[in-house]
Amino acid sequence: MDLLIATENEHKVTELSSIFEGHDLSTPSREGIEYFFEETESTFLGNARGKAFALLEKSDRPVIADDSGLVVPALKGEPGVYSARYGSTEKGRKLATPERNRYLLEKMKGITDRRAFFVCCMVLAVSKERFFVSQETLAGEIIGDPRGEYGFGYDPLFFLPGYGKTVAELPEEEKNRISHRGVAGIRIMAILNSMR
Amino acid sequence: MDLLIATENEHKVTELSSIFEGHDLSTPSREGIEYFFEETESTFLGNARGKAFALLEKSDRPVIADDSGLVVPALKGEPGVYSARYGSTEKGRKLATPERNRYLLEKMKGITDRRAFFVCCMVLAVSKERFFVSQETLAGEIIGDPRGEYGFGYDPLFFLPGYGKTVAELPEEEKNRISHRGVAGIRIMAILNSMR
Repeated sequence: MDLLIATENEHKVTELSSIFEGHDLSTPSREGIEYFFEETESTFLGNARGKAFALLEKSDRPVIADDSGLVVPALKGEPGVYSARYGSTEKGRKLATPERNRYLLEKMKGITDRRAFFVCCMVLAVSKERFFVSQETLAGEIIGDPRGEYGFGYDPLFFLPGYGKTVAELPEEEKNRISHRGVAGIRIMAILNSMR
Repeated sequence: MDLLIATENEHKVTELSSIFEGHDLSTPSREGIEYFFEETESTFLGNARGKAFALLEKSDRPVIADDSGLVVPALKGEPGVYSARYGSTEKGRKLATPERNRYLLEKMKGITDRRAFFVCCMVLAVSKERFFVSQETLAGEIIGDPRGEYGFGYDPLFFLPGYGKTVAELPEEEKNRISHRGVAGIRIMAILNSMR
């Protein structure tokens, strides 16, 4: 199926393209589509849905949008829906990834409960009234020093006890099989396949 | 998989049991579970999600909840999320199905645009952070005289031009293959099967 992904983040495009094998994925910029949605909702679902429907209005094909983030219970759920802009209010500008990761570690200084989970809420919008949501998680722990070169965002700090590795130490294919975004995508794929 | 359905409507239980073949469905009353959610949200998603999570808190297994209704564009979307209690504010009590159907026909007197669609928003909640949504529709027309004995609710007034029949004239198996609730359920089944 021809699908439009509501992102210009090349890391996400790569991840999603390998998840949605057999479907033809494009991005708004490749299709010359401009749309606007400010991700100011209080839930991953609110942001993912808002983004999907803002783009769907301009699109001639079904849209996939996601909102993802890191949830640290010991930080009362932070950074949560603010994951991508964590620390920017305090610093007065959007932080680059390594700086944002250091900001998180600073916040977690002295905290012994290191449990955390990634959340991905993915929305497939076919029309205003026909839509599908898949929200999945990945559980792990925040370690003190970044490790690994794969992935992006908080991946180098996110340790998976079952693997003895951070998410950034997992090759893309392995990450997609178990990650919050990968598994959320597998469910959306199941839905797409049920439409054939 | 053992699943709990957030309904005591026996029509729905029957419909869903035949859709979710191979899974073990139970209801809150059969499990002795009491839960409370008032369906006062403005969207089918809001009601289905609220109901699913209210029940999930009391349940030891994944929950399926749905909110469904009839949308008539010429009535500005009415009865919509008020489908089950349409006319009750005006009449001061909940109407029985035949009375509610007459109320709808009264409202549509003189309206030539008879287009309508059924909506079903179905939610599968596995945990607070892991959930899935499938919202599907069925398009048709509101006819002036009820026809057929199957189904329930507005089914006898809902005519499917492609079949030359109302939904209430379709045997259950045929209805489940094409109806808003049937197709929404097929997508949730695809998700459940992808978890195996």
